[in-house]
Amino acid sequence: MPIISLLTDFGYQDEYVGVLKGVIYRFNPAATIVDLTHGIAAQDVAQAAHVLAAAYPYFPEGSIHVVVVDPGVGSQRAVIAVRQEGHLFLAPDNGVLSVIWRDLRPRQVVRVENPAFFLPSLSQTFHGRDIFAPVAAHLSLGVALSQLGPQRDFEDLIQLPLAQASYLHSRLLEGQVVGVDHFGNLATNLSLRHIEKLRSAASRLVIQIAGRCIDDLSTHYGQVDSGRLLALINSRNCLEIALANGNAAAELHAGVGTPVHVSAEAFL
Amino acid sequence: MPIISLLTDFGYQDEYVGVLKGVIYRFNPAATIVDLTHGIAAQDVAQAAHVLAAAYPYFPEGSIHVVVVDPGVGSQRAVIAVRQEGHLFLAPDNGVLSVIWRDLRPRQVVRVENPAFFLPSLSQTFHGRDIFAPVAAHLSLGVALSQLGPQRDFEDLIQLPLAQASYLHSRLLEGQVVGVDHFGNLATNLSLRHIEKLRSAASRLVIQIAGRCIDDLSTHYGQVDSGRLLALINSRNCLEIALANGNAAAELHAGVGTPVHVSAEAFL
Amino acid sequence: MPIISLLTDFGYQDEYVGVLKGVIYRFNPAATIVDLTHGIAAQDVAQAAHVLAAAYPYFPEGSIHVVVVDPGVGSQRAVIAVRQEGHLFLAPDNGVLSVIWRDLRPRQVVRVENPAFFLPSLSQTFHGRDIFAPVAAHLSLGVALSQLGPQRDFEDLIQLPLAQASYLHSRLLEGQVVGVDHFGNLATNLSLRHIEKLRSAASRLVIQIAGRCIDDLSTHYGQVDSGRLLALINSRNCLEIALANGNAAAELHAGVGTPVHVSAEAFL
Repeated sequence: MPIISLLTDFGYQDEYVGVLKGVIYRFNPAATIVDLTHGIAAQDVAQAAHVLAAAYPYFPEGSIHVVVVDPGVGSQRAVIAVRQEGHLFLAPDNGVLSVIWRDLRPRQVVRVENPAFFLPSLSQTFHGRDIFAPVAAHLSLGVALSQLGPQRDFEDLIQLPLAQASYLHSRLLEGQVVGVDHFGNLATNLSLRHIEKLRSAASRLVIQIAGRCIDDLSTHYGQVDSGRLLALINSRNCLEIALANGNAAAELHAGVGTPVHVSAEAFL
Repeated sequence: MPIISLLTDFGYQDEYVGVLKGVIYRFNPAATIVDLTHGIAAQDVAQAAHVLAAAYPYFPEGSIHVVVVDPGVGSQRAVIAVRQEGHLFLAPDNGVLSVIWRDLRPRQVVRVENPAFFLPSLSQTFHGRDIFAPVAAHLSLGVALSQLGPQRDFEDLIQLPLAQASYLHSRLLEGQVVGVDHFGNLATNLSLRHIEKLRSAASRLVIQIAGRCIDDLSTHYGQVDSGRLLALINSRNCLEIALANGNAAAELHAGVGTPVHVSAEAFL
Repeated sequence: MPIISLLTDFGYQDEYVGVLKGVIYRFNPAATIVDLTHGIAAQDVAQAAHVLAAAYPYFPEGSIHVVVVDPGVGSQRAVIAVRQEGHLFLAPDNGVLSVIWRDLRPRQVVRVENPAFFLPSLSQTFHGRDIFAPVAAHLSLGVALSQLGPQRDFEDLIQLPLAQASYLHSRLLEGQVVGVDHFGNLATNLSLRHIEKLRSAASRLVIQIAGRCIDDLSTHYGQVDSGRLLALINSRNCLEIALANGNAAAELHAGVGTPVHVSAEAFL
C-alpha cells in the first residue's frame, strides 16, 4: 500500500490538515499518511517546490505526494497528477512541481477532472478536502492516472522562473539563497557540482554573502567556533551558509533571493 | 478499527501530544490516530468547539474524537462520552461540544467515571494522559459507552453561549466573526442559508466589517486583485472575509467577535 | 511491531521530519511512527533530555525512541543505541539521555557504526536522515543492538550537568525551573518526594519564585481565581508554578534556571 505524503501551507492551528486525513481514511481506511510539512509560508509556491524536490527521493517508490499550496483554488487553474521516477504527484498546475522537473521530465501528466473521484459537493475554497484528498485516496487504492482525466502536454504546464547559478567569469560563481530553514540556515542554488568544478582549479574558495566573507568550506557545523559563519555542502547537496549554534538568516539579514558569490583563489 | 482523532490546546513544543499517543498505543497497538490540531489557543474552548464541528463530518463513521481543551482539569468537572451521528466524542463537560449540538441532539451521553479504563494513577493536571487517552483506546477496541459510566441528561450538560446571527430588519443581517484561521481569513456565523435568503430578494449584497464595505460575494479567492478584500462562502458553508493573497485579520484589525453586516440592495 | 518515537529540534516548517519518516518507511513499510515533538528549541539538548524522560515511560515496552538534537552532527561525536527499562534509545552521545539515567543505568550501550544499516551515502549535516532513521527502521525489524557496533562503557558517555535540588537547611529547599511549557507553566526539579519530606514536618508550605510568594500547594489549576499564581504537583510528579488561566513564565519573567524556594512553616 503506497504512502501518501502531504505538503501544504495550511499551518497547524486549524482543522484543515486533520480534515484532509479524515477524508483520505474515509476512502482508504488502511492508508499510511506522512506530513511532509504544513509549515510552508502562506501561498509560497516556490518554497513548496524546493521542499518537495529535497524530500521526495527519500520516500519509498510508489509514494503519492499531495501538494496543496494553491492560491488559485476555485479558479480555472487545473489540478494535475504526474508520474515521475516511480512516484506520483498530485498538485495544482501552478509551478509547484517545477523544481522536480529541473533535471527530469515526467513520464505521464493528466488533468484531474473526473468528479467520480471527488467529494460529491465541491467548495470553492478547499479543494484539498474536496478534490486532492479523495483523489489521493483513490490513487492509493490503485486507480490509474488515466482514469482521472485527459493527458496533458508537459509543455503546457506552468513553470516557475527558477533562479539559476551562473559563472560571472571562470573563477567567480554567482548564486542565490533559495530557502531559509527553521535553524536560519541559508540554502543556495549552488550545487555540489558547481562547487567541485570551481574547486578543481583552486587552492581554496572564498564565499561572500551580505558583505561578509567566509574562508573556504567547512565539512560540518561544529568545525568552527560558536557564533561564527560557515559554508558547507548541505543535505540537499548544495552550498549552505550557517552560523555555528546560531541563526545565519538573522545574523546576515538574508533571505530568499540574497546573492551569494563563490570565488576560486589561485594556487600560490 | 475506528480512527481516533485528537483535538487539543497542547501546542507542538512539549511531550504532551506524544504521550497521549504512547498511552493509546499501549492499550491498542493497532490504533489509527489523526491529529485534528493541537494549535487551539490555550484554554480556548469556543475555538475548539468550532474547529470540531467543521471537521468531524469528514471523518469516517465510527471515528472517536478526543477533545482535550480542559481548563478545569483536576476539578469536579465531568468527562463525558457522547454518541452522535455515528461518531463518538470524548470531552470535558465544558461546552466544547456545543457547536456540534446546534442542530442535533446527541443520541447517548455518559459520564466517564469507571477507573477500570483509566491509568492506574491519576494526576490532577494531565487527564489527557491519564483518562482521555486510555478511554479512547478502549473505545477503539469496542468498549461500550455504557461501560464507562452512568447516563447523563443532555439538559444537564454545559453549553457555551454561541453568538447568533440575527436580522436587524428584513434586509440587514448582523453576525460575528467566530474564527480566524492561519491565513488570517475571518470565518463568520452567517450561514449559506442566511445569505441565500437575503440574496433571494436582492440584486446584490453589501458586506460591512470594521468600517469597510465589500461589494457582493466572490466565488473564489482569486476573483479579485491581490491585496483587495473579498467575501465568499467558505468551506464551512459560512460567510468568510478574506484578503486576496493577504491576511484579512491583520488588515482589518479584526478577530473573534468583530461584527459583520450584510445588507441586500433592492432590485433597481 | 515496536513503535518508533521521534524527538527533534527540526521544527515544523521544513522537509526534515517528513524525510525521516520517508526513510523509515522505505526500510519498514509497516512501521508505526509517533512524533514525540519536533518543537525542542534549536540545539537545546537539556530541554530534549527532560522531555524524553517525562514521556518515554508512557510508551509501550519495546518502543524505539529516536532523539535527533544533535549540534555535533558531522563531527566525531558518537551515535549510541541504548537498552533501558525495556525501551530502546537512539541518540547522539551528547548527554541527551542524561535525565533518563538519573535513577537508572542502562542495561546495554553500543556505539552505532555499522554502515550496513545506514543510507549508502552520508551527508555531514543530516544524520537524522542518513543514520538515525534507517537504523531505527532496522531496529524495528528486529536487528539486535550488538549488530550496530561495539559495546560502550556507561562511564565513558557524556552526561549533562543537571541542576540538583538541595536543602539550604532542614526547612528550606532550593530548586530550579527546568522547563517552560507551551502554557507558560514552570516545571521545577523539586520532586514530589522532596515536597512530601518537607511537608511531613510542617503545617503548610510557602513557595517563593521571582520575588513572589505562593501560599501552599493547590491540587489543580482551577483551585485559585483566574490570574492568580499557584503551585502544584505536575504530571511529571514535580513542583510546578502556574498562573490560573494565564502564562506564569510571562507574568514572572521566569525561565529555565530561575531559582525556586520552598519553606516549611512550623506547626503553631
